[in-house]
Amino acid sequence: MKVGFIGLGQMGRAMAGNLVKAGHEVTVWNRSPGRDEALVAAGAKRAATPAEAAQGDVVMTMLADDKAVEGVVFGENGIADAPALHVGHSTISPALADRLTQAHGGAYVSAPVFGRPPAAEAAKLFVAAAGPEEHLQRCAPLFEAIGQRVFPLGDKPSAANVVKISGNFMIMAAVESLAEAMALAEKSGVERAQLLEVLTGTIFGAPVYANYGAMLVEDRFKPAGFAAPLGLKDMTLVADAAAKARVPMPVLGVVRDHLLDAIANEGEDVDWAGVALAVRRGAGIR
Amino acid sequence: MKVGFIGLGQMGRAMAGNLVKAGHEVTVWNRSPGRDEALVAAGAKRAATPAEAAQGDVVMTMLADDKAVEGVVFGENGIADAPALHVGHSTISPALADRLTQAHGGAYVSAPVFGRPPAAEAAKLFVAAAGPEEHLQRCAPLFEAIGQRVFPLGDKPSAANVVKISGNFMIMAAVESLAEAMALAEKSGVERAQLLEVLTGTIFGAPVYANYGAMLVEDRFKPAGFAAPLGLKDMTLVADAAAKARVPMPVLGVVRDHLLDAIANEGEDVDWAGVALAVRRGAGIR
Amino acid sequence: MKVGFIGLGQMGRAMAGNLVKAGHEVTVWNRSPGRDEALVAAGAKRAATPAEAAQGDVVMTMLADDKAVEGVVFGENGIADAPALHVGHSTISPALADRLTQAHGGAYVSAPVFGRPPAAEAAKLFVAAAGPEEHLQRCAPLFEAIGQRVFPLGDKPSAANVVKISGNFMIMAAVESLAEAMALAEKSGVERAQLLEVLTGTIFGAPVYANYGAMLVEDRFKPAGFAAPLGLKDMTLVADAAAKARVPMPVLGVVRDHLLDAIANEGEDVDWAGVALAVRRGAGIR
Amino acid sequence: MKVGFIGLGQMGRAMAGNLVKAGHEVTVWNRSPGRDEALVAAGAKRAATPAEAAQGDVVMTMLADDKAVEGVVFGENGIADAPALHVGHSTISPALADRLTQAHGGAYVSAPVFGRPPAAEAAKLFVAAAGPEEHLQRCAPLFEAIGQRVFPLGDKPSAANVVKISGNFMIMAAVESLAEAMALAEKSGVERAQLLEVLTGTIFGAPVYANYGAMLVEDRFKPAGFAAPLGLKDMTLVADAAAKARVPMPVLGVVRDHLLDAIANEGEDVDWAGVALAVRRGAGIR
Repeated sequence: MKVGFIGLGQMGRAMAGNLVKAGHEVTVWNRSPGRDEALVAAGAKRAATPAEAAQGDVVMTMLADDKAVEGVVFGENGIADAPALHVGHSTISPALADRLTQAHGGAYVSAPVFGRPPAAEAAKLFVAAAGPEEHLQRCAPLFEAIGQRVFPLGDKPSAANVVKISGNFMIMAAVESLAEAMALAEKSGVERAQLLEVLTGTIFGAPVYANYGAMLVEDRFKPAGFAAPLGLKDMTLVADAAAKARVPMPVLGVVRDHLLDAIANEGEDVDWAGVALAVRRGAGIR
Repeated sequence: MKVGFIGLGQMGRAMAGNLVKAGHEVTVWNRSPGRDEALVAAGAKRAATPAEAAQGDVVMTMLADDKAVEGVVFGENGIADAPALHVGHSTISPALADRLTQAHGGAYVSAPVFGRPPAAEAAKLFVAAAGPEEHLQRCAPLFEAIGQRVFPLGDKPSAANVVKISGNFMIMAAVESLAEAMALAEKSGVERAQLLEVLTGTIFGAPVYANYGAMLVEDRFKPAGFAAPLGLKDMTLVADAAAKARVPMPVLGVVRDHLLDAIANEGEDVDWAGVALAVRRGAGIR
Repeated sequence: MKVGFIGLGQMGRAMAGNLVKAGHEVTVWNRSPGRDEALVAAGAKRAATPAEAAQGDVVMTMLADDKAVEGVVFGENGIADAPALHVGHSTISPALADRLTQAHGGAYVSAPVFGRPPAAEAAKLFVAAAGPEEHLQRCAPLFEAIGQRVFPLGDKPSAANVVKISGNFMIMAAVESLAEAMALAEKSGVERAQLLEVLTGTIFGAPVYANYGAMLVEDRFKPAGFAAPLGLKDMTLVADAAAKARVPMPVLGVVRDHLLDAIANEGEDVDWAGVALAVRRGAGIR
Repeated sequence: MKVGFIGLGQMGRAMAGNLVKAGHEVTVWNRSPGRDEALVAAGAKRAATPAEAAQGDVVMTMLADDKAVEGVVFGENGIADAPALHVGHSTISPALADRLTQAHGGAYVSAPVFGRPPAAEAAKLFVAAAGPEEHLQRCAPLFEAIGQRVFPLGDKPSAANVVKISGNFMIMAAVESLAEAMALAEKSGVERAQLLEVLTGTIFGAPVYANYGAMLVEDRFKPAGFAAPLGLKDMTLVADAAAKARVPMPVLGVVRDHLLDAIANEGEDVDWAGVALAVRRGAGIR
């Protein structure tokens, strides 16, 4: 298939690379230059503008936030009116997904992904996809090239974005509650690693606890795998969606406050799991 | 081994039964009569007092709360000065575990368990055990008779109680955050079951999400598997321990408030997962 | 002085009326027509565009939110480049105040007001004013015409907006905590009015408790004096400012959630003091 | 009147002194010796036991907590069966007040006070009093000797205790929200004192804001006027009463957590207004 790919950060480069490997004709574009060399060397074409990358069958976007997506869609030489089907992988607001759906006259699929850069490189992402059935089917081979499993979420694209930001909220909630329990344990004479072992050895045996739990036990918060300000951005997407839907989410308030605490005290470059440092600081643990 | 067993609720009966099956000489006692018939039929002896059940090698207690344990230990004909090693399986405060350790002159092991009645019957409990090494070793065959795995937590008995109540807090935190995410999803047009499928299919694939998630999707809150007032009792144990250790736990505040909301609005017989009903009520979901 | 006045809601009409009464030459503009008749009858001129209202010495704006202010400043026939000094009375974000300061080349004063429509009519508003000293002095006779007291807050306009939204947060926090205490009292057998009498009779003798307390005692939440969605808008301004400044504000999270609960369950037309209804609902008080 | 007075801390000494001044025959008792010398010099008698102090018309208690009150009432030589009417001024749980009511066969009045030691010395306390009408009337001259105003709260003694602990909760809530607003202001370039001046100059003109506000502006948290652990004790009384009444109180959760933070980080001797330090720490303000 002829596929455009816009947004060559760590995630985007890996995803575009897997599309090339799978034999698709890939045209790439990135705002800042110099990110596409390995891809071009592997066979991808370089587009001069976002619109140029969107002349094929499908154009995928994997960008930092709502503003960046708005830029490549509605900005100069944007893809708003380009012929390709727009498949949005970015973590954006459901509200923007609704706006894109309308702007593209329905030719839009939301397909945010779960997984970190190593999973992206290994084509092991999870893809939460929503949009018109025919479009989802058209994307199937592309999703197969980048991920290990697709979760179809109906024909309304923004539903996939709701699921994505809810998932990120669930991660933060799991980290926060684990950090609170660990602080209690530690100040009561139980090692964090012991508590974690019991939890993951019983009914909490999931990657979210194993992976973030290890970070908390080993105090690994820098360099950030996913920086706290990005986490804050995502939690703000959740808060905006919750306000719009009139849904009180008190645990969301807790994690947002602890992200702010972590950033204020540890710096902008702390991992979002650094909410644990806010918890520890509150308990007077040095 | 000669084992006494005090406290024949649903959990205790199953545990004592497995001790009998494993060939131990079991003597049982329960405050209210009529709970021991099947056990006696299976070969257990009936004691007239708690102290009488504590004349062998080990006496296990599996009771509702601190007050009940204080009663059988320090009350009339209590086991405070009995020869048997006291092994406490109840979910009690770390503070009471410390007091028991002292009262028994060190001959005390805390061994709270994770698992519901069916797991108890199947001898599939998880046992979090702490106490002097020699005592833990002595208990090994008994723990093997009732559980699938023992987590040794050092020589200070109350450490096991800290871990147990932390685990219950983690369950409540997982249910609460799942309920918040589901309310957001539902009011945004995503079915609860869809969100749950994505979560458990990605990095939240643990029994705590699968099991409680199904309850939340199917609105199964009565009859209670574990009633909200018992959950509130446990969260109060956490709050007391946190206050003593000077550890702020904001998510604990959220789940306690939602337990109160659930009890106030749904009745004393609602499951502790009924915190989800408090979440839904706040969002105006009928 | 030659004064333009843009935004003729309940507050704006009263303020503009007092400027006319004080002898100023007032030119008014409002997006929707028909709001200026009494003012024109009293001697005000009617402008055809915002820019036309900003040809005199000072132009005041009193609008609903950031978007409305952006419209009259940066929209077609806006006041961005008009000769008059812009004095902003609206409750807007500090971020927008910073942008206005820059857009007007420093010829901008933020002067949000405290007080409800009756206070506006009686020229009893409190004015929190910040901007270059010379501009504040120029505005002094105008502020005197509309208010009972001016609080000068330095030369950075957005400081006044920070104070204004902080004040609104303080009101919500007072109402929320009063509602929680009243729910506890009521379910413990103490009448709400009794509790309020003790509070205002001792160290809580301030209008915020007396006025909102009476609403809570008498369950007066409709028609809204200040509607919950407007309160939510203001609390969102606070949340945005707090996120930008990296300041955790857990009580803010509580009041936002209860505003959402109130709107979800009582409708968009409930007063912002309706957070008390969310508190009562949680406690199972019908 | 013949009055016994039990509990000669700073508050109790001042209150007993005012009873002596008003011409009553006062007999005093205190657990630790040496606190009664000035009182005896002024004309009070010294009792050897609590019971001895309770042989007159009325016996007043002003003690630290539930445990201390239980000690002088139900302990050896306690006042449980003494002839005097028991008037309890201590800040205790409503549950203990109910128990005292029953133990004294109805001859019990709860009369907790609002005010700090200087107010006690100046006989300017506020007295929240509840109990049978005839008993309240009998106490009127005594309350007049120690306070500036009595708030009668009906015939159920524990109602007065509910009001007292609710009042202390309201103080903590006011301090917490003020601290949050001040942190936002400060990090946004507005001085704390400026914000406070606007608040108290508009609708927040009450002693609670003026007095605690000054502490927050001047960072006066040591020596403690009222130590954080005592504040925590009172907030725990509120939490217990709220749990019993099934009343969610999310702001209570926030202030309890910040009291724990303040104690963990500042020491046991910090003032309860030190919740503001927890707020500032979270925001990264040094």
